[in-house]
Amino acid sequence: VTVRNPTESERAARTPSEFERIERFFAPLAGSGALGLKDDAALLDPIPGRRFVLTADAIVAGVHYLPDDPPDLVARKLLRVNLSDLAAMGATPEGYLLTTALPPDHGADWLERFAAGLAADQAEFGIVLLGGDSVATPGPATFSLTAVGSVEVGRELRRGGARPGDHIYVSGTLGDGALGLRALRGELPPSLGRGERDALADRYRLPRPRLALGRGLAGDPATAPLAHAAMDISDGLVADLAHICAASGVAATVRADRLPLSPAARAAVEADPALLALPLAGGDDYELLFTAPPAAAAALAVLAAELDLPLTRIGEIPASGPPHAATDRAVRVVDGGGHELSLSQQGYRHF
Amino acid sequence: VTVRNPTESERAARTPSEFERIERFFAPLAGSGALGLKDDAALLDPIPGRRFVLTADAIVAGVHYLPDDPPDLVARKLLRVNLSDLAAMGATPEGYLLTTALPPDHGADWLERFAAGLAADQAEFGIVLLGGDSVATPGPATFSLTAVGSVEVGRELRRGGARPGDHIYVSGTLGDGALGLRALRGELPPSLGRGERDALADRYRLPRPRLALGRGLAGDPATAPLAHAAMDISDGLVADLAHICAASGVAATVRADRLPLSPAARAAVEADPALLALPLAGGDDYELLFTAPPAAAAALAVLAAELDLPLTRIGEIPASGPPHAATDRAVRVVDGGGHELSLSQQGYRHF
Repeated sequence: VTVRNPTESERAARTPSEFERIERFFAPLAGSGALGLKDDAALLDPIPGRRFVLTADAIVAGVHYLPDDPPDLVARKLLRVNLSDLAAMGATPEGYLLTTALPPDHGADWLERFAAGLAADQAEFGIVLLGGDSVATPGPATFSLTAVGSVEVGRELRRGGARPGDHIYVSGTLGDGALGLRALRGELPPSLGRGERDALADRYRLPRPRLALGRGLAGDPATAPLAHAAMDISDGLVADLAHICAASGVAATVRADRLPLSPAARAAVEADPALLALPLAGGDDYELLFTAPPAAAAALAVLAAELDLPLTRIGEIPASGPPHAATDRAVRVVDGGGHELSLSQQGYRHF
Repeated sequence: VTVRNPTESERAARTPSEFERIERFFAPLAGSGALGLKDDAALLDPIPGRRFVLTADAIVAGVHYLPDDPPDLVARKLLRVNLSDLAAMGATPEGYLLTTALPPDHGADWLERFAAGLAADQAEFGIVLLGGDSVATPGPATFSLTAVGSVEVGRELRRGGARPGDHIYVSGTLGDGALGLRALRGELPPSLGRGERDALADRYRLPRPRLALGRGLAGDPATAPLAHAAMDISDGLVADLAHICAASGVAATVRADRLPLSPAARAAVEADPALLALPLAGGDDYELLFTAPPAAAAALAVLAAELDLPLTRIGEIPASGPPHAATDRAVRVVDGGGHELSLSQQGYRHF
């Protein structure tokens, strides 16, 4: 008997290099539940009293990052964007699954740096790789990451819990992510210094998932949750606050003069006041946006001090008034004098 | 104050059409844990006494399927390939997360058919969409799916449990997947009838994840597991059996004349004996490959009858002899007379 092998093209989807890639670069990142990435699937043991929290994001070279961005930062940003979603639910990260679709020019050097970024953040956040897949693509590099976290049953933070009379808070500073993208593109005013540009670019490239804050807002069994509603800011403050309003059936008012700005962002806005649109609508901040009752103010101040992370009250959920439709117009932005600013094609301006 | 909006390119990664896509096509597929796909992450409650089982696969248009394949079948195959991994662990599927990277030509019509395929299989397998992401790509359509299943703690089927003296079994029939791909390419002998070609093509396009078999092999608390080791056949019988051998530290002997062939596959091999390579090495079968002690034979016969699914003994783990290295050579393939066939560049042949 002499019989032919399957054709080369039939094996193209699973070349030996796939197994080599997994063995060399990904297996060292795997935790015990991943069974060395050598079984059909990974195992995840239940944690008594806790729910699992699952979230997934995909990124494409040339769309979500620049093809020549440092591979370790591409990996860490993908991981952190997902961890930010876990933080917004009040969850603690447990692990992740990763699929990669790689073009031929992503060789061992690129993968080594990509895996080094994952290893660094696994150590920082105490998580492991649980499983995944690695395939070839004739198109741009494409990655999909599913993050797994856990939260005590019933204490998960949701978007739909905002109530009339709540105060609206954000963590950290706003606008750095979008200003950082402009810094990387060389689009910021020339008066800004190198240090300020670098600080902004770093914020764009390496989000800080606010996991400890999320856990603090969810509270523990002995306390009530501090926050009524929470989410992370990925699409921009106004757009994301509108999601909370829609889910909660409420409206919101934001004071533009109260937005927390980093020193670098403040310098950028002073050099070009038009850049004030970015803290309001720029996206990529990955800070937590949450609402809390006025009675939580003191506890939030303690939490901010414990975490060494500013929590700034930027507005409120009106105590009365009609809940608006699920559009940006559910969110009113006012200046320091209480005059409304409107989002138009040209940006934010007075009515 | 008049300030500019973020530039269009900054919003390109998350256009309104992303939200529309999710709202229109994916939200209707979501289960209650997915929170309507409107929160930051999905919730998955622990199931007392059970572990979760996680697996992920990615597929790329033009690599893993033909760009003009029916979208519903693309969706169902992606889902079923992952369910097959759960079956191989003895797990029951619970749900899945899906990320899509779509080129501009994948409009509402394509997505509607893709989502209809998911809906059909959700109903068939009793699962729901838990979460995901949908982004744009300038490259080929790329999908990543993470499947979540559960299995009773300690009863999961692993690759590493094969023992000397075990019998080797496969479910169903082998070679249909690889022959089906050839049928779709018009590469099968002209003597084959339309019905045979269609039957083979159907097996390639729509794998049958052997979930009930996996659960049966894992057994229940009152019984010992029937199988010592199991996996699903995706890369071809010989290559996948080599994975079991490597994980278990054993060798294996397969009788080529015992491979279960469907009527259509038998007709194809009779028309062209060279095609016998496909049941051995062709991949895409998604049957279960498992080893079991001789004492399990009667219980396996009962299980096969209950499931109306052939379980064929195709070889054994030698009772003695050195465990081979982790290569295909851990697996010996012999003909009906006991003479060894070798896998060469030209296919299987006698030494």
